[in-house]
Amino acid sequence: MDAIEVISAKRDGRELSPGQIDWVIDAYTRGVVADEQMSALAMAILLNGMNRREIAGWTRAMIRSGDRMEWSALPGPTTDKHSTGGVGDKITLPLAPLVAACGGYVPQLSGRGLGHTGGTLDKLESIPGWRASLSNDEMLGVLGAAGAVICAAGDGLAPADKKLYALRDVTGTVESIPLIASSIMSKKIAEGTGALVLDVKVGSGAFMKTVEEARELATTMVELGTDAGVGTVALLTAMDRPLGLAVGNALEVAESVEVLAGGGPADVVELTVLLAREMLATAGITGGRDPERALADGSAMDAWRRMITAQGGDPDAPLPLAAETTEVVAPSSGVLSRLDAYGVGLAAWRLGAGRERKEDPVSSGAGIVLHAKPGDPVREGAPLMTLYADDAGRFERALAALEGTYAVGEAADEDLLPLVIDRVTA
Amino acid sequence: MDAIEVISAKRDGRELSPGQIDWVIDAYTRGVVADEQMSALAMAILLNGMNRREIAGWTRAMIRSGDRMEWSALPGPTTDKHSTGGVGDKITLPLAPLVAACGGYVPQLSGRGLGHTGGTLDKLESIPGWRASLSNDEMLGVLGAAGAVICAAGDGLAPADKKLYALRDVTGTVESIPLIASSIMSKKIAEGTGALVLDVKVGSGAFMKTVEEARELATTMVELGTDAGVGTVALLTAMDRPLGLAVGNALEVAESVEVLAGGGPADVVELTVLLAREMLATAGITGGRDPERALADGSAMDAWRRMITAQGGDPDAPLPLAAETTEVVAPSSGVLSRLDAYGVGLAAWRLGAGRERKEDPVSSGAGIVLHAKPGDPVREGAPLMTLYADDAGRFERALAALEGTYAVGEAADEDLLPLVIDRVTA
Repeated sequence: MDAIEVISAKRDGRELSPGQIDWVIDAYTRGVVADEQMSALAMAILLNGMNRREIAGWTRAMIRSGDRMEWSALPGPTTDKHSTGGVGDKITLPLAPLVAACGGYVPQLSGRGLGHTGGTLDKLESIPGWRASLSNDEMLGVLGAAGAVICAAGDGLAPADKKLYALRDVTGTVESIPLIASSIMSKKIAEGTGALVLDVKVGSGAFMKTVEEARELATTMVELGTDAGVGTVALLTAMDRPLGLAVGNALEVAESVEVLAGGGPADVVELTVLLAREMLATAGITGGRDPERALADGSAMDAWRRMITAQGGDPDAPLPLAAETTEVVAPSSGVLSRLDAYGVGLAAWRLGAGRERKEDPVSSGAGIVLHAKPGDPVREGAPLMTLYADDAGRFERALAALEGTYAVGEAADEDLLPLVIDRVTA
Repeated sequence: MDAIEVISAKRDGRELSPGQIDWVIDAYTRGVVADEQMSALAMAILLNGMNRREIAGWTRAMIRSGDRMEWSALPGPTTDKHSTGGVGDKITLPLAPLVAACGGYVPQLSGRGLGHTGGTLDKLESIPGWRASLSNDEMLGVLGAAGAVICAAGDGLAPADKKLYALRDVTGTVESIPLIASSIMSKKIAEGTGALVLDVKVGSGAFMKTVEEARELATTMVELGTDAGVGTVALLTAMDRPLGLAVGNALEVAESVEVLAGGGPADVVELTVLLAREMLATAGITGGRDPERALADGSAMDAWRRMITAQGGDPDAPLPLAAETTEVVAPSSGVLSRLDAYGVGLAAWRLGAGRERKEDPVSSGAGIVLHAKPGDPVREGAPLMTLYADDAGRFERALAALEGTYAVGEAADEDLLPLVIDRVTA
């Protein structure tokens, strides 16, 4: 077998055999297939597609390229959530301890932000002392103590995916549903969770811009999880406007703590509770504490404090806030009719909340606090949002990114997506 | 501008702008665009195509990546031929001196064989002393003295094409008509010839398997040449069976010398004379010696001897012939109905006439001599072909390659292609 045979098959629209897929993933991981060969194959996959059998084989081969974790030492079932990413999407932060408080074990391996979408690890690193990198034994220790752990994936987990993801990022081959689905699912299946709930975001602030694309991705991932023996459910949820009122690293931690304290924005609370119920149901956990009650009675907050403390963080330390601020005010009185998620995400990125290159640091204290969401009444001259940055020189480009992304009218736009659009099961 | 912008445009089916094309070719030549980015772009081009404007811009950018030669110091017009390659295609060897004998100047930059097709430089190197590498001044000297020169392209000629060709070879992106056409034409236009005749081969032994594909390639190349101010004509010719009776390096030189001596196989003579007339007409050379007469009166042979001598070769030295031979005999009496060009080319390759890897040497004396062509009568047990190799151990795989590639029946197959299928002009 050689790389040209595999590339030519997909180039010419043929189905890749299990043997071809196993060979090419293994050979790429070992460096026998070169980057320039894999990028040509990735482009052929992007343009000619893969069927369900090929995607399943591709995912299995990526899992087999490394270790598969397992949590049989825990006294209860594991369950996890993955979001395809959006603006203001801090749901993982309150969700993981909330599910722990209700009887689940959440072994979440998370990522960092790239582009206009935030990363869970970047957010948690704004908590003084908190560590993202844990050994497998440390992960098990935190899980046992707190019921939830959120940390970075080790190098041994799906190394083929790690290498391929970095390659796709620089070769224009990110936007392929088979490659996106197999990348996400190979990591989640290798992570060893027994159940998985996927939050597939739809809209300008998400990778999937239309409900149709999102449904295709969700269906593909649910099939992959099910075929691999992981109970999997997907929700399609709105990302045409930001989620919650805070966008940025420490700002989103603060909003998450508000939710865990029983408050917080309605959309964040609603989605957190809904996802918690899905995670518990998918894992077959019944009869435990109800998520709404666990937010009200402080048990979710207790789990959060245990989880942060177990990873070296100080849950009582003040969070950093950037020193420079500026405001965007309402141009007229009325109702905020729309607020584009991508524009807000891009502005937060330019304020320093995101990174230009993989190796850049992020600013913990930078970001945006919204004072109104679509449908809320606004008064001419009153603040619509406050921008935070470490350096006032960043405001100009951030404000430029916000131009045209919001409007004041008589009512919310009719084409705003419902918070939960659809539910996809096997 | 960056590589992802250009890759994404072609991936999404958009036309590349002249600025994008100039940037990406220049940046790739300088190493700013990486191999894995260019291979993803090449696959997107292969699958989504390029229009006439894009192909012309791509070709111009590759020419501009290096030097463009010019021959204004010569007393007459330049004219050249390019074949897309086949089995037994030695036409360049008798053709270049023949055209020189009729008043043209032929500045031919040639290549080496890869895969089952032979390379002109490999063939000529079987002549003791002959040198393929010449400086520009040496080229001009040989052209002035002999009227024709056949040599290797220097490193300064279309370096972007050189780099891209090597990349396409290992990434499954060879089979793209826009990329094939721009590769050939960038070298031929940079070579500085004033007129060009393209011999586009069709059939199992050629890169283009169908007349339709060959016509598309021919049309694209004629347009490119014409747009660049080079008078260009293309012939589509048969490569479903081998050309002539000799396949191999020294064997093809010997057959070429037969043609120059006024003999040789009918198909080789017919195509050589036809291409010579096209080269002379396209360059506007009229009233000189007719090609048929130049073969008969020895003037083409004189030009050959001058050309070989001027490049250090001894035209009188005996040619190498491999020591080991075996024969394939006719399985029954009748008429040879078919003889597949690809099978014969593959067998010659396995005998040592071609190379496995770019850096391998070729055997000068290896190859195949045919004793019958389709349509010829054959007698049971009489030799159909003689195989030559330096090592008898090579016969087994060569004979295996020939299995099923010939048949004896009552007449030549009706679907054999005519020697000249079509003529394409601007």
